Amino acid sequence: MKALVTDIDGTITNHARRISLPAIDAIRRLVDGGVPVVLASGNTLCFMDGIAKMVGTDGTVICENGGVWRRGFFGEPVIAGDRRVTLAAFEVLRDHYAGNGLALDPFSHGLRYADVAFARTVPADEVRAVLRDHPVRVLDTGFALHLQEIGISKATALVALAEAMGMTPADFVAIGDSENDTSMIEAAGAGAAVGNAVPEAKAAADFVATAPFGDGFVEAVGHYFP
Amino acid sequence: MKALVTDIDGTITNHARRISLPAIDAIRRLVDGGVPVVLASGNTLCFMDGIAKMVGTDGTVICENGGVWRRGFFGEPVIAGDRRVTLAAFEVLRDHYAGNGLALDPFSHGLRYADVAFARTVPADEVRAVLRDHPVRVLDTGFALHLQEIGISKATALVALAEAMGMTPADFVAIGDSENDTSMIEAAGAGAAVGNAVPEAKAAADFVATAPFGDGFVEAVGHYFP
Repeated sequence: MKALVTDIDGTITNHARRISLPAIDAIRRLVDGGVPVVLASGNTLCFMDGIAKMVGTDGTVICENGGVWRRGFFGEPVIAGDRRVTLAAFEVLRDHYAGNGLALDPFSHGLRYADVAFARTVPADEVRAVLRDHPVRVLDTGFALHLQEIGISKATALVALAEAMGMTPADFVAIGDSENDTSMIEAAGAGAAVGNAVPEAKAAADFVATAPFGDGFVEAVGHYFP
Repeated sequence: MKALVTDIDGTITNHARRISLPAIDAIRRLVDGGVPVVLASGNTLCFMDGIAKMVGTDGTVICENGGVWRRGFFGEPVIAGDRRVTLAAFEVLRDHYAGNGLALDPFSHGLRYADVAFARTVPADEVRAVLRDHPVRVLDTGFALHLQEIGISKATALVALAEAMGMTPADFVAIGDSENDTSMIEAAGAGAAVGNAVPEAKAAADFVATAPFGDGFVEAVGHYFP
């Protein structure tokens, strides 16, 4: 395989979102060996820049679960998702829960260009029911709930990014742990799930690591980049 | 000592800004042992949030070289510096170099609340000369040039933050490597410089590590938190 795309939270971090030192080490070995490594997450671009810089990639990232992607630290960010769509749905949701005396506040509001993220204080299925007539998907990353425009995912971003990199998704190994990683695990040439992954991610994967979190990531990297 | 405040770039990272794994390990040991660890940098708040989350602190940060600080991930950011002042000076600088056919562009423009940062494509001393009549300091972090309102520094932020934390700067060990760390190294109860630190930082320090970068940081932490 030519390149790697990996989720961050729950895949190269533990449940508390502390990054795995063996995972950083494995990523640096790939990068220094000339293998492009793309970090793909629901986080914002500037949050991911801090992580990409410290880990030591070239800054190629997929952010906001595919709503935003960028090639290299100095590339022009591409905003694929339409935030007007997700914000409109969020307003409906906020009004619904305000009626029940529950306040919903979006995370990193001014820093998001495509999706809307908020705390997991309400059940994802209830949110899906409230928004069933809206053109949004409700993602539960295990760390937050995200509203994302239908047709946008880590997989759609991987397709566009791979092309910008002169490759195809078939050249990539994708590693993840949660619902929002399933699409890229399926779209990539090879897909892997860490031991703590949700059943859907494991079912979509070609390789399922025994170990959870960062150790499972290292296991998957070792399998595809021996 | 009760708490630690540390610079990031060049202190817990190498020259390429890759974070030191032994440094992460040392910080986690302190945090898990109940010692507050504050990350202090010229970076933006959201960039530092990515780093703080992955390293595993409680999110207490000093950003923009003291222009912005926040207690914990969910604290209210305090904006100490006045960006109108630094932007006004930057406009003068940009016009000056535009006259010489040199374009200056600020880094992470929409993400900064106090200072203005730009690439080190022009000599710091020349910038200081151009801006000698403006109420700004020109900081050269070795990674970028920063314009900062006079009276704002990592030290002034440390004083305010320590009070918000129910402590004083005397309770802190400060560790750094560059010009912009000197003020907090002096203001803290104890100051340390890593082996690669600039002469001013070493001169201000009570303890100078033999090793450079992250290994020097670990050395200093071991000295003050045996």
